[in-house]
Amino acid sequence: MTDHHTYKKVEIVGSSKKSIEDAIENALAECAKSIHNMEWFEVVETRGHIVDSKVGHYQVVLKIGFKIMDS
Amino acid sequence: MTDHHTYKKVEIVGSSKKSIEDAIENALAECAKSIHNMEWFEVVETRGHIVDSKVGHYQVVLKIGFKIMDS
Amino acid sequence: MTDHHTYKKVEIVGSSKKSIEDAIENALAECAKSIHNMEWFEVVETRGHIVDSKVGHYQVVLKIGFKIMDS
Amino acid sequence: MTDHHTYKKVEIVGSSKKSIEDAIENALAECAKSIHNMEWFEVVETRGHIVDSKVGHYQVVLKIGFKIMDS
Amino acid sequence: MTDHHTYKKVEIVGSSKKSIEDAIENALAECAKSIHNMEWFEVVETRGHIVDSKVGHYQVVLKIGFKIMDS
Amino acid sequence: MTDHHTYKKVEIVGSSKKSIEDAIENALAECAKSIHNMEWFEVVETRGHIVDSKVGHYQVVLKIGFKIMDS
Amino acid sequence: MTDHHTYKKVEIVGSSKKSIEDAIENALAECAKSIHNMEWFEVVETRGHIVDSKVGHYQVVLKIGFKIMDS
Amino acid sequence: MTDHHTYKKVEIVGSSKKSIEDAIENALAECAKSIHNMEWFEVVETRGHIVDSKVGHYQVVLKIGFKIMDS
Amino acid sequence: MTDHHTYKKVEIVGSSKKSIEDAIENALAECAKSIHNMEWFEVVETRGHIVDSKVGHYQVVLKIGFKIMDS
Amino acid sequence: MTDHHTYKKVEIVGSSKKSIEDAIENALAECAKSIHNMEWFEVVETRGHIVDSKVGHYQVVLKIGFKIMDS
Amino acid sequence: MTDHHTYKKVEIVGSSKKSIEDAIENALAECAKSIHNMEWFEVVETRGHIVDSKVGHYQVVLKIGFKIMDS
Amino acid sequence: MTDHHTYKKVEIVGSSKKSIEDAIENALAECAKSIHNMEWFEVVETRGHIVDSKVGHYQVVLKIGFKIMDS
Repeated sequence: MTDHHTYKKVEIVGSSKKSIEDAIENALAECAKSIHNMEWFEVVETRGHIVDSKVGHYQVVLKIGFKIMDS
Repeated sequence: MTDHHTYKKVEIVGSSKKSIEDAIENALAECAKSIHNMEWFEVVETRGHIVDSKVGHYQVVLKIGFKIMDS
Repeated sequence: MTDHHTYKKVEIVGSSKKSIEDAIENALAECAKSIHNMEWFEVVETRGHIVDSKVGHYQVVLKIGFKIMDS
Repeated sequence: MTDHHTYKKVEIVGSSKKSIEDAIENALAECAKSIHNMEWFEVVETRGHIVDSKVGHYQVVLKIGFKIMDS
Repeated sequence: MTDHHTYKKVEIVGSSKKSIEDAIENALAECAKSIHNMEWFEVVETRGHIVDSKVGHYQVVLKIGFKIMDS
Repeated sequence: MTDHHTYKKVEIVGSSKKSIEDAIENALAECAKSIHNMEWFEVVETRGHIVDSKVGHYQVVLKIGFKIMDS
Repeated sequence: MTDHHTYKKVEIVGSSKKSIEDAIENALAECAKSIHNMEWFEVVETRGHIVDSKVGHYQVVLKIGFKIMDS
Repeated sequence: MTDHHTYKKVEIVGSSKKSIEDAIENALAECAKSIHNMEWFEVVETRGHIVDSKVGHYQVVLKIGFKIMDS
Repeated sequence: MTDHHTYKKVEIVGSSKKSIEDAIENALAECAKSIHNMEWFEVVETRGHIVDSKVGHYQVVLKIGFKIMDS
Repeated sequence: MTDHHTYKKVEIVGSSKKSIEDAIENALAECAKSIHNMEWFEVVETRGHIVDSKVGHYQVVLKIGFKIMDS
Repeated sequence: MTDHHTYKKVEIVGSSKKSIEDAIENALAECAKSIHNMEWFEVVETRGHIVDSKVGHYQVVLKIGFKIMDS
Repeated sequence: MTDHHTYKKVEIVGSSKKSIEDAIENALAECAKSIHNMEWFEVVETRGHIVDSKVGHYQVVLKIGFKIMDS
């Protein structure tokens, strides 16, 4: 057993018609299908598409950190 | 007809007493009075006024991109 | 009486299980215990903890500006 | 009447042979010919031309913010 | 006649199927329809769409500077 | 079927003896071997090796975005 | 007695109707009421309010460094 | 009891004749005299004085985060 | 055989109780379990946890570059 | 005779007890002793020493550009 | 003989009427008159002059790295 | 005798097989062969080569400041 940990960060873009928070949750839900033990996220960029002069989709660029597990 | 497009980006500050998302929608609604065919936005900065130790207004600085139409 | 003012900015991290806006309000409420006359805030960074593949806490790093009062 | 405002920011380069402050004032004076109700400026960049090993012109890049008025 | 000049910078996105340089020229050609006396450009960002694993369009975000003329 | 999409961004360095555009195309061609449905790229950095006082290789650091497909 | 020193940096916004330099001096004078042994400053941001198309106040955001004294 | 925490970040410059790590430890030791419950640090800048063409002191600018405790 | 190479960069956080250099080596050792032919690293961020007013762990965020091999 | 020019940029720190503009002029005057044909400058950083709670010296970090002459 | 090397980086602006790549090559060719053993370059900024609504000159700001040779 | 000083900053890359601090010292030692009176350094970037999944060389990019002496 080691006394230190190693983490990997991946860059993901989540989207939502509803809110910035929902776009973040959507990104996490999608990543959860292949990455377990996600620990934190950092918002890198917030943007979106405009449809009929309203927000069509919020797009939130995240970095997601997770522990690399020893095999 | 050309096979490429040109876009312009303008920098707008929207505000709202309610939420960051509402400040973005307010900015888009105001811009829609003079700019048609807005396509995307990028959040540049999020800030706000404080009134009585609470958020008075959220202020969201956006860049809004729209296609320049041929006359 | 002077014709100019001086402000100080402090860097605070607010958190919330609910939303980015709530994390900002929580930071302001906590600061209000020791700082009066807060005037504006600037969001410096938005991040959070992930619990069971969902957002556990939003963490919003703010700079908060307030007027330095003459004694 | 709304309870929120929308602002636009434009990027202007003022110049002056005398000083940085004078270059800022020159930019504001020129903008005042077409923009009313300017509210704030932010200095983005300070630079200049050199003539005979002295400052020929200061050039100050500003963002100028003004309220978008309802028609 | 004044001894100083004022410039405005606008942010434009040019695109091209061919090259980065062509995207810049396309942006300038489109702007020339409404802006005369453009003097310089600065590349802010270079990106593009991918179609069938190849570059579909280069998209170059430019700031374009031009002198504000006295009327 | 969902009403939102999730994207991943990977950071790739393409190189070419010929041009910046060719380095971008080389990066895309190499990625296409393992990633399908690439949608956009962003140039992060442009650099290169120098051989005999000429450009030996252009090296272009890209972020490449692609949709994460539901299984 | 130690062979090293520790410094703290605080972020202050000074203002002046006259000049950028005067706004810096005003910030230092105000800080001197509570902080002794200030050693250096760094200009972080220069901005201002506009009144009647002229500079109303220059606002200069500074970081001010001072030695933490052993008690 | 609340379900969220608030943190403050202060900016400190530690120094050491020996190493970057030692400069960090010196900054923490000095801060510990007035701040309890420090939780994390972020290195903002690494620099130093040069004496006789060797490093005289390493100077490491840190942000230090600590929980604001309810009274 | 081609006359150019393609590289991928991954973002990894290494940690160590001892030093910044050791945190970097730990990150490389962990990555070596799945990535061969790593060629270079870039330090993106240096931070750490504080335990009892001392550094508990250094955490070093790295980008690690490696050649993508033709199959 | 060529149809293009090559410039070099050097980074210089000028200082003055009086003003930011004077620190810039002092830097140019000193550089003029070894560099002829300086063409432009860019302010990179503005800072200073504090003496008795007042500005002791303004220190302005400049990049100075000059044409490389063919021999 | 040492087991390590020291490099210097200089900042150069190359220009060309033709292309970004040609501006880079022109900068390298000019530097080769006084600097031998240049090893790599990094593009810092891409800009240009506009003449008659077309690119007059591309101007590419480079950092060029070269090994410092022991005498 | 003047009441102000002018400094120049040069950008140097030091390397070492041992540590970040040693790479800094190596850069200073090499520069000392041609530059006297170096006063301070700023770390701009830390990176390195990887050999056999370990750090081969640390490479530290520094800016080194020194006073320009009157002749």
